[in-house]
Amino acid sequence: MNTLTKTNKAGEKISPAVIRRLPRYRSYLSDLQNSGIERISSDKLSGMMGYTASQIRQDLNNFGGFGQQGYGYNVALLNNEIAEILGLNKHYKMVIVGAGHLGTAITNYISVYRREFEIRAMFDIKRELIDTEISGIRVRDIADLEAVLKEEHIDIGVITTSRKSAQAIADVFVEGEIYGIWNFAAIDVSVPEHVALKVVHLSDSLHELVYYVNNRDNPSFQK
Amino acid sequence: MNTLTKTNKAGEKISPAVIRRLPRYRSYLSDLQNSGIERISSDKLSGMMGYTASQIRQDLNNFGGFGQQGYGYNVALLNNEIAEILGLNKHYKMVIVGAGHLGTAITNYISVYRREFEIRAMFDIKRELIDTEISGIRVRDIADLEAVLKEEHIDIGVITTSRKSAQAIADVFVEGEIYGIWNFAAIDVSVPEHVALKVVHLSDSLHELVYYVNNRDNPSFQK
Repeated sequence: MNTLTKTNKAGEKISPAVIRRLPRYRSYLSDLQNSGIERISSDKLSGMMGYTASQIRQDLNNFGGFGQQGYGYNVALLNNEIAEILGLNKHYKMVIVGAGHLGTAITNYISVYRREFEIRAMFDIKRELIDTEISGIRVRDIADLEAVLKEEHIDIGVITTSRKSAQAIADVFVEGEIYGIWNFAAIDVSVPEHVALKVVHLSDSLHELVYYVNNRDNPSFQK
Repeated sequence: MNTLTKTNKAGEKISPAVIRRLPRYRSYLSDLQNSGIERISSDKLSGMMGYTASQIRQDLNNFGGFGQQGYGYNVALLNNEIAEILGLNKHYKMVIVGAGHLGTAITNYISVYRREFEIRAMFDIKRELIDTEISGIRVRDIADLEAVLKEEHIDIGVITTSRKSAQAIADVFVEGEIYGIWNFAAIDVSVPEHVALKVVHLSDSLHELVYYVNNRDNPSFQK
Protein backbone atom coordinates (compact mmCIF):
# COMPACT_ATOMS: atom_id res chain seq x y z
CA MET A 1 0.00 0.00 0.00
CA ASN A 2 1.30 3.43 -0.90
CA THR A 3 2.22 5.28 2.25
CA LEU A 4 3.70 8.33 0.58
CA THR A 5 1.98 11.57 1.40
CA LYS A 6 0.10 13.00 -1.53
CA THR A 7 1.47 16.28 -2.75
CA ASN A 8 -0.16 18.78 -5.03
CA LYS A 9 1.25 19.61 -8.42
CA ALA A 10 3.62 22.13 -6.81
CA GLY A 11 4.97 19.31 -4.67
CA GLU A 12 3.39 20.69 -1.49
CA LYS A 13 1.46 18.55 0.94
CA ILE A 14 -2.29 18.77 0.58
CA SER A 15 -3.75 20.40 3.68
CA PRO A 16 -6.13 18.49 5.96
CA ALA A 17 -8.82 21.11 5.23
CA VAL A 18 -8.69 20.27 1.52
CA ILE A 19 -8.68 16.55 2.29
CA ARG A 20 -11.75 17.02 4.44
CA ARG A 21 -13.59 18.63 1.52
CA LEU A 22 -12.61 15.98 -1.06
CA PRO A 23 -15.27 13.39 -0.09
CA ARG A 24 -17.87 16.12 -0.50
CA TYR A 25 -16.65 16.98 -3.97
CA ARG A 26 -16.77 13.33 -4.80
CA SER A 27 -20.39 13.01 -3.64
CA TYR A 28 -21.52 15.88 -5.82
CA LEU A 29 -19.47 14.80 -8.81
CA SER A 30 -20.87 11.26 -8.56
CA ASP A 31 -24.40 12.66 -8.63
CA LEU A 32 -23.56 14.81 -11.66
CA GLN A 33 -21.95 11.86 -13.41
CA ASN A 34 -24.97 9.64 -12.68
CA SER A 35 -27.19 12.35 -14.16
CA GLY A 36 -25.15 12.25 -17.36
CA ILE A 37 -23.62 15.69 -16.92
CA GLU A 38 -20.20 15.84 -18.54
CA ARG A 39 -18.86 19.28 -17.61
CA ILE A 40 -19.42 21.65 -14.73
CA SER A 41 -18.12 25.14 -13.99
CA SER A 42 -16.77 26.19 -10.61
CA ASP A 43 -19.66 28.68 -10.44
CA LYS A 44 -22.27 25.95 -10.85
CA LEU A 45 -20.47 23.70 -8.33
CA SER A 46 -20.38 26.68 -6.00
CA GLY A 47 -24.15 27.11 -6.30
CA MET A 48 -24.69 23.43 -5.50
CA MET A 49 -22.15 22.97 -2.72
CA GLY A 50 -22.13 26.31 -0.95
CA TYR A 51 -18.36 26.74 -1.23
CA THR A 52 -17.23 29.87 -3.08
CA ALA A 53 -16.17 29.39 -6.70
CA SER A 54 -12.70 30.64 -5.84
CA GLN A 55 -12.43 28.14 -2.97
CA ILE A 56 -13.41 25.37 -5.39
CA ARG A 57 -10.89 26.46 -8.01
CA GLN A 58 -8.18 26.67 -5.35
CA ASP A 59 -9.05 23.22 -3.92
CA LEU A 60 -9.19 21.48 -7.28
CA ASN A 61 -6.11 23.28 -8.50
CA ASN A 62 -4.15 21.06 -6.09
CA PHE A 63 -4.71 18.11 -8.34
CA GLY A 64 -3.84 19.21 -11.83
CA GLY A 65 -5.31 21.11 -14.68
CA PHE A 66 -8.82 19.75 -14.75
CA GLY A 67 -10.51 23.09 -15.19
CA GLN A 68 -10.26 24.92 -18.48
CA GLN A 69 -11.07 28.61 -18.53
CA GLY A 70 -14.65 29.07 -19.71
CA TYR A 71 -15.07 25.36 -20.25
CA GLY A 72 -15.43 23.94 -16.75
CA TYR A 73 -14.35 20.67 -15.20
CA ASN A 74 -14.66 17.28 -16.83
CA VAL A 75 -16.97 15.62 -14.29
CA ALA A 76 -15.96 11.99 -14.89
CA LEU A 77 -12.26 12.76 -14.98
CA LEU A 78 -12.31 14.89 -11.85
CA ASN A 79 -14.50 12.41 -9.98
CA ASN A 80 -12.16 9.58 -10.86
CA GLU A 81 -9.08 11.58 -9.90
CA ILE A 82 -10.53 12.48 -6.51
CA ALA A 83 -11.47 8.84 -5.92
CA GLU A 84 -7.88 7.95 -6.73
CA ILE A 85 -6.45 10.60 -4.44
CA LEU A 86 -8.66 9.39 -1.60
CA GLY A 87 -7.79 5.79 -2.39
CA LEU A 88 -11.38 4.73 -3.10
CA ASN A 89 -10.45 2.66 -6.14
CA LYS A 90 -8.78 0.12 -3.87
CA HIS A 91 -10.15 -2.66 -1.74
CA TYR A 92 -10.01 -2.48 2.05
CA LYS A 93 -10.41 -5.32 4.53
CA MET A 94 -12.23 -4.32 7.66
CA VAL A 95 -13.20 -5.76 11.00
CA ILE A 96 -15.90 -4.37 13.25
CA VAL A 97 -15.66 -4.72 17.01
CA GLY A 98 -19.00 -4.39 18.75
CA ALA A 99 -22.02 -6.18 17.30
CA GLY A 100 -24.68 -4.19 19.15
CA HIS A 101 -27.10 -1.71 17.58
CA LEU A 102 -24.38 0.59 16.35
CA GLY A 103 -22.10 -2.16 15.04
CA THR A 104 -25.03 -3.69 13.19
CA ALA A 105 -25.93 -0.31 11.77
CA ILE A 106 -22.42 0.33 10.49
CA THR A 107 -22.17 -3.18 9.07
CA ASN A 108 -25.44 -2.78 7.17
CA TYR A 109 -24.31 0.58 5.97
CA ILE A 110 -20.88 -0.56 4.78
CA SER A 111 -22.28 -3.72 3.17
CA VAL A 112 -23.68 -1.53 0.41
CA TYR A 113 -20.10 -0.68 -0.62
CA ARG A 114 -18.76 -4.23 -0.80
CA ARG A 115 -16.55 -3.45 -3.76
CA GLU A 116 -14.39 -1.05 -1.74
CA PHE A 117 -14.97 -2.23 1.80
CA GLU A 118 -15.00 -5.87 2.75
CA ILE A 119 -15.96 -6.70 6.33
CA ARG A 120 -13.94 -9.81 7.15
CA ALA A 121 -15.36 -10.35 10.62
CA MET A 122 -17.30 -8.82 13.47
CA PHE A 123 -16.44 -9.34 17.10
CA ASP A 124 -18.24 -9.07 20.40
CA ILE A 125 -17.74 -10.14 23.99
CA LYS A 126 -21.38 -11.10 24.62
CA ARG A 127 -22.01 -14.86 24.42
CA GLU A 128 -25.51 -14.39 23.00
CA LEU A 129 -24.15 -12.43 20.02
CA ILE A 130 -21.23 -14.73 19.18
CA ASP A 131 -21.92 -16.92 16.13
CA THR A 132 -24.95 -14.91 15.06
CA GLU A 133 -24.84 -13.36 11.58
CA ILE A 134 -25.27 -9.70 10.65
CA SER A 135 -25.62 -8.93 6.93
CA GLY A 136 -24.01 -12.30 6.29
CA ILE A 137 -21.01 -11.55 8.54
CA ARG A 138 -20.41 -13.96 11.42
CA VAL A 139 -19.91 -12.43 14.84
CA ARG A 140 -16.85 -13.94 16.50
CA ASP A 141 -15.58 -14.01 20.05
CA ILE A 142 -13.51 -10.90 20.84
CA ALA A 143 -10.86 -13.32 22.13
CA ASP A 144 -10.20 -14.25 18.47
CA LEU A 145 -9.47 -10.68 17.35
CA GLU A 146 -5.71 -10.87 17.84
CA ALA A 147 -5.44 -14.14 15.91
CA VAL A 148 -7.55 -12.81 13.02
CA LEU A 149 -5.38 -9.71 12.78
CA LYS A 150 -2.31 -11.94 12.71
CA GLU A 151 -3.74 -14.32 10.09
CA GLU A 152 -4.91 -11.83 7.52
CA HIS A 153 -3.94 -8.29 6.89
CA ILE A 154 -6.79 -6.02 7.96
CA ASP A 155 -6.66 -2.41 6.75
CA ILE A 156 -9.34 -0.74 8.84
CA GLY A 157 -10.77 -1.56 12.25
CA VAL A 158 -14.08 -0.12 13.39
CA ILE A 159 -14.84 0.39 17.08
CA THR A 160 -18.50 0.45 18.06
CA THR A 161 -18.06 -0.76 21.63
CA SER A 162 -18.72 1.04 24.89
CA ARG A 163 -16.32 3.74 26.01
CA LYS A 164 -14.80 1.35 28.56
CA SER A 165 -13.52 -1.11 25.95
CA ALA A 166 -12.54 1.32 23.21
CA GLN A 167 -8.92 2.01 24.17
CA ALA A 168 -8.16 -1.69 24.74
CA ILE A 169 -9.58 -2.52 21.31
CA ALA A 170 -7.58 0.29 19.72
CA ASP A 171 -4.44 -1.13 21.37
CA VAL A 172 -5.12 -4.59 19.90
CA PHE A 173 -5.69 -2.97 16.48
CA VAL A 174 -2.37 -1.13 16.72
CA GLU A 175 -0.57 -4.27 17.88
CA GLY A 176 -2.17 -6.13 14.95
CA GLU A 177 -0.76 -3.55 12.53
CA ILE A 178 -4.04 -2.21 11.31
CA TYR A 179 -3.64 0.92 9.13
CA GLY A 180 -6.68 2.91 10.20
CA ILE A 181 -9.30 3.03 12.94
CA TRP A 182 -12.85 4.33 12.59
CA ASN A 183 -14.02 5.06 16.11
CA PHE A 184 -17.70 5.35 17.03
CA ALA A 185 -17.22 4.89 20.78
CA ALA A 186 -17.91 8.15 22.62
CA ILE A 187 -14.34 8.44 23.82
CA ASP A 188 -11.10 9.67 22.26
CA VAL A 189 -8.70 6.75 21.88
CA SER A 190 -4.95 7.30 21.57
CA VAL A 191 -3.02 5.65 18.77
CA PRO A 192 0.54 6.11 17.52
CA GLU A 193 1.27 8.70 14.85
CA HIS A 194 1.44 6.10 12.04
CA VAL A 195 -2.11 4.80 12.56
CA ALA A 196 -4.90 6.75 10.89
CA LEU A 197 -7.90 7.62 13.03
CA LYS A 198 -11.30 9.15 12.33
CA VAL A 199 -13.96 9.64 14.93
CA VAL A 200 -17.76 9.78 14.60
CA HIS A 201 -19.57 10.76 17.77
CA LEU A 202 -23.26 10.14 17.09
CA SER A 203 -24.53 10.88 20.56
CA ASP A 204 -22.42 14.04 20.85
CA SER A 205 -23.90 15.24 17.59
CA LEU A 206 -27.45 14.52 18.73
CA HIS A 207 -26.87 16.15 22.12
CA GLU A 208 -25.44 19.24 20.49
CA LEU A 209 -28.49 19.38 18.22
CA VAL A 210 -30.74 19.14 21.28
CA TYR A 211 -28.96 22.13 22.81
CA TYR A 212 -29.66 24.20 19.71
CA VAL A 213 -33.26 22.98 19.58
CA ASN A 214 -33.59 24.52 23.04
CA ASN A 215 -31.62 27.66 22.15
CA ARG A 216 -32.81 28.50 18.70
CA ASP A 217 -32.19 32.20 19.03
CA ASN A 218 -28.48 31.62 19.47
CA PRO A 219 -27.01 33.48 16.52
CA SER A 220 -23.69 31.67 16.74
CA PHE A 221 -25.51 28.56 15.64
CA GLN A 222 -23.44 25.67 14.38
CA LYS A 223 -25.08 24.69 11.09
CA MET B 1 -40.04 24.77 25.04
CA ASN B 2 -37.48 27.26 26.27
CA THR B 3 -36.03 29.13 23.34
CA LEU B 4 -33.93 31.58 25.31
CA THR B 5 -30.26 31.38 24.62
CA LYS B 6 -28.30 30.02 27.55
CA THR B 7 -25.93 32.50 29.05
CA ASN B 8 -23.09 31.85 31.41
CA LYS B 9 -23.06 33.20 34.94
CA ALA B 10 -21.65 36.49 33.66
CA GLY B 11 -24.67 36.76 31.37
CA GLU B 12 -22.64 36.11 28.20
CA LYS B 13 -23.70 33.68 25.55
CA ILE B 14 -21.98 30.33 25.70
CA SER B 15 -19.75 29.86 22.68
CA PRO B 16 -20.41 27.10 20.13
CA ALA B 17 -16.97 25.65 20.90
CA VAL B 18 -17.95 25.14 24.54
CA ILE B 19 -21.32 23.72 23.51
CA ARG B 20 -19.53 21.27 21.25
CA ARG B 21 -17.47 20.02 24.19
CA LEU B 22 -20.40 19.65 26.61
CA PRO B 23 -21.66 16.28 25.32
CA ARG B 24 -18.13 14.93 25.78
CA TYR B 25 -17.99 16.15 29.38
CA ARG B 26 -21.32 14.51 29.93
CA SER B 27 -20.09 11.17 28.57
CA TYR B 28 -17.10 11.12 30.89
CA LEU B 29 -19.06 12.35 33.91
CA SER B 30 -21.72 9.67 33.34
CA ASP B 31 -19.02 7.00 33.32
CA LEU B 32 -17.53 8.39 36.53
CA GLN B 33 -20.95 8.55 38.15
CA ASN B 34 -21.73 4.97 37.12
CA SER B 35 -18.43 3.92 38.67
CA GLY B 36 -19.48 5.51 41.96
CA ILE B 37 -16.93 8.32 41.82
CA GLU B 38 -18.25 11.39 43.64
CA ARG B 39 -15.63 14.04 43.03
CA ILE B 40 -13.09 14.70 40.30
CA SER B 41 -10.40 17.35 39.88
CA SER B 42 -9.85 19.26 36.65
CA ASP B 43 -6.39 17.63 36.53
CA LYS B 44 -7.86 14.12 36.61
CA LEU B 45 -10.51 15.04 34.03
CA SER B 46 -7.72 16.49 31.92
CA GLY B 47 -5.81 13.20 32.05
CA MET B 48 -8.93 11.30 30.97
CA MET B 49 -10.24 13.64 28.30
CA GLY B 50 -7.12 15.13 26.78
CA TYR B 51 -8.27 18.71 27.26
CA THR B 52 -5.93 20.86 29.40
CA ALA B 53 -6.98 21.37 33.03
CA SER B 54 -7.21 25.11 32.43
CA GLN B 55 -9.47 24.55 29.39
CA ILE B 56 -11.71 22.37 31.55
CA ARG B 57 -11.85 24.92 34.38
CA GLN B 58 -12.65 27.66 31.87
CA ASP B 59 -15.37 25.59 30.16
CA LEU B 60 -17.05 24.52 33.37
CA ASN B 61 -16.71 27.96 34.87
CA ASN B 62 -19.41 29.03 32.42
CA PHE B 63 -21.99 27.15 34.41
CA GLY B 64 -21.50 28.16 37.99
CA GLY B 65 -19.32 27.36 40.96
CA PHE B 66 -19.11 23.60 40.69
CA GLY B 67 -15.41 23.39 41.31
CA GLN B 68 -14.00 24.09 44.72
CA GLN B 69 -10.33 24.84 45.02
CA GLY B 70 -8.51 21.67 46.07
CA TYR B 71 -11.75 19.74 46.29
CA GLY B 72 -12.72 19.12 42.67
CA TYR B 73 -16.07 18.92 40.94
CA ASN B 74 -19.11 17.13 42.30
CA VAL B 75 -19.58 14.55 39.54
CA ALA B 76 -23.33 13.97 39.92
CA LEU B 77 -24.13 17.65 40.27
CA LEU B 78 -22.03 18.68 37.30
CA ASN B 79 -23.32 15.83 35.15
CA ASN B 80 -26.89 16.77 35.93
CA GLU B 81 -26.27 20.44 35.27
CA ILE B 82 -24.69 19.74 31.88
CA ALA B 83 -27.61 17.47 30.98
CA GLU B 84 -29.92 20.32 31.91
CA ILE B 85 -27.96 22.87 29.87
CA LEU B 86 -28.04 20.57 26.85
CA GLY B 87 -31.73 19.85 27.40
CA LEU B 88 -31.29 16.11 27.88
CA ASN B 89 -33.70 15.91 30.81
CA LYS B 90 -36.59 16.59 28.44
CA HIS B 91 -38.48 14.38 26.04
CA TYR B 92 -38.21 14.88 22.28
CA LYS B 93 -40.52 13.58 19.58
CA MET B 94 -38.72 12.56 16.42
CA VAL B 95 -39.50 11.33 12.94
CA ILE B 96 -37.02 9.60 10.67
CA VAL B 97 -37.27 9.97 6.91
CA GLY B 98 -35.55 7.18 5.03
CA ALA B 99 -36.02 3.59 6.19
CA GLY B 100 -33.05 2.09 4.36
CA HIS B 101 -29.90 0.75 5.98
CA LEU B 102 -28.94 4.05 7.51
CA GLY B 103 -32.43 4.95 8.73
CA THR B 104 -32.74 1.52 10.31
CA ALA B 105 -29.35 1.94 11.91
CA ILE B 106 -30.23 5.30 13.43
CA THR B 107 -33.62 4.03 14.61
CA ASN B 108 -32.03 1.06 16.34
CA TYR B 109 -29.46 3.34 17.85
CA ILE B 110 -31.94 5.92 19.14
CA SER B 111 -34.35 3.28 20.42
CA VAL B 112 -31.90 2.65 23.27
CA TYR B 113 -32.61 6.18 24.53
CA ARG B 114 -36.40 5.96 24.54
CA ARG B 115 -36.73 8.08 27.66
CA GLU B 116 -35.30 11.16 25.93
CA PHE B 117 -36.00 10.43 22.28
CA GLU B 118 -39.26 9.02 21.06
CA ILE B 119 -39.46 8.08 17.39
CA ARG B 120 -43.08 8.76 16.45
CA ALA B 121 -42.84 7.52 12.87
CA MET B 122 -40.54 6.56 10.04
CA PHE B 123 -41.17 7.42 6.43
CA ASP B 124 -40.04 6.13 3.08
CA ILE B 125 -41.06 6.43 -0.54
CA LYS B 126 -40.44 2.76 -1.42
CA ARG B 127 -43.64 0.69 -1.53
CA GLU B 128 -41.89 -2.44 -0.26
CA LEU B 129 -40.76 -0.65 2.92
CA ILE B 130 -44.08 1.03 3.72
CA ASP B 131 -45.95 -0.68 6.58
CA THR B 132 -42.94 -2.73 7.62
CA GLU B 133 -41.73 -2.28 11.22
CA ILE B 134 -38.26 -1.29 12.39
CA SER B 135 -37.59 -1.58 16.13
CA GLY B 136 -41.35 -1.48 16.61
CA ILE B 137 -41.77 1.71 14.56
CA ARG B 138 -44.06 1.52 11.55
CA VAL B 139 -42.71 2.84 8.27
CA ARG B 140 -45.26 5.17 6.68
CA ASP B 141 -45.64 6.57 3.19
CA ILE B 142 -43.59 9.75 2.74
CA ALA B 143 -46.82 11.31 1.40
CA ASP B 144 -48.11 11.27 5.02
CA LEU B 145 -45.20 13.27 6.44
CA GLU B 146 -46.87 16.67 6.14
CA ALA B 147 -50.04 15.47 7.82
CA VAL B 148 -48.11 13.85 10.69
CA LEU B 149 -46.16 17.05 11.28
CA LYS B 150 -49.45 18.96 11.35
CA GLU B 151 -51.16 16.51 13.71
CA GLU B 152 -48.54 16.24 16.36
CA HIS B 153 -45.72 18.48 17.32
CA ILE B 154 -42.45 16.87 16.27
CA ASP B 155 -39.26 18.33 17.77
CA ILE B 156 -36.56 16.70 15.67
CA GLY B 157 -36.58 15.32 12.13
CA VAL B 158 -33.86 12.96 10.94
CA ILE B 159 -32.91 12.76 7.26
CA THR B 160 -31.34 9.49 6.10
CA THR B 161 -32.46 9.70 2.48
CA SER B 162 -30.40 10.05 -0.67
CA ARG B 163 -28.85 13.41 -1.47
CA LYS B 164 -31.52 14.04 -4.09
CA SER B 165 -34.41 14.03 -1.62
CA ALA B 166 -32.70 15.67 1.33
CA GLN B 167 -33.49 19.34 0.62
CA ALA B 168 -37.14 18.62 -0.19
CA ILE B 169 -37.50 16.73 3.11
CA ALA B 170 -35.80 19.55 4.99
CA ASP B 171 -38.29 21.98 3.41
CA VAL B 172 -41.24 19.87 4.59
CA PHE B 173 -39.70 19.73 8.07
CA VAL B 174 -39.33 23.52 8.15
CA GLU B 175 -42.89 23.99 6.85
CA GLY B 176 -44.08 21.57 9.55
CA GLU B 177 -42.39 23.71 12.22
CA ILE B 178 -39.91 21.16 13.38
CA TYR B 179 -37.32 22.59 15.80
CA GLY B 180 -34.24 20.69 14.71
CA ILE B 181 -32.93 18.55 11.87
CA TRP B 182 -30.33 15.80 12.13
CA ASN B 183 -29.03 15.28 8.62
CA PHE B 184 -27.23 12.10 7.54
CA ALA B 185 -27.67 12.63 3.79
CA ALA B 186 -24.32 13.44 2.17
CA ILE B 187 -25.43 16.92 1.18
CA ASP B 188 -25.70 20.24 2.98
CA VAL B 189 -29.34 21.25 3.27
CA SER B 190 -30.37 24.89 3.82
CA VAL B 191 -32.79 25.77 6.57
CA PRO B 192 -33.87 29.12 8.06
CA GLU B 193 -31.91 30.61 10.95
CA HIS B 194 -34.49 29.53 13.54
CA VAL B 195 -34.22 25.80 12.75
CA ALA B 196 -31.39 23.89 14.42
CA LEU B 197 -29.29 21.67 12.19
CA LYS B 198 -26.57 19.12 12.82
CA VAL B 199 -24.92 17.06 10.14
CA VAL B 200 -23.29 13.62 10.26
CA HIS B 201 -21.49 12.57 7.10
CA LEU B 202 -20.63 8.91 7.56
CA SER B 203 -19.26 8.28 4.09
CA ASP B 204 -17.21 11.50 4.13
CA SER B 205 -15.68 10.39 7.42
CA LEU B 206 -14.84 6.93 6.06
CA HIS B 207 -13.42 8.36 2.83
CA GLU B 208 -11.25 10.79 4.76
CA LEU B 209 -10.01 7.88 6.89
CA VAL B 210 -9.17 5.97 3.72
CA TYR B 211 -7.08 8.89 2.51
CA TYR B 212 -5.06 8.85 5.73
CA VAL B 213 -4.73 5.07 5.59
CA ASN B 214 -3.01 5.64 2.25
CA ASN B 215 -0.99 8.63 3.45
CA ARG B 216 0.08 7.62 6.92
CA ASP B 217 3.22 9.70 6.93
CA ASN B 218 1.20 12.90 6.63
CA PRO B 219 2.16 14.76 9.79
CA SER B 220 -0.82 17.10 9.60
CA PHE B 221 -2.96 14.14 10.40
CA GLN B 222 -6.52 14.79 11.53
CA LYS B 223 -6.93 12.65 14.65
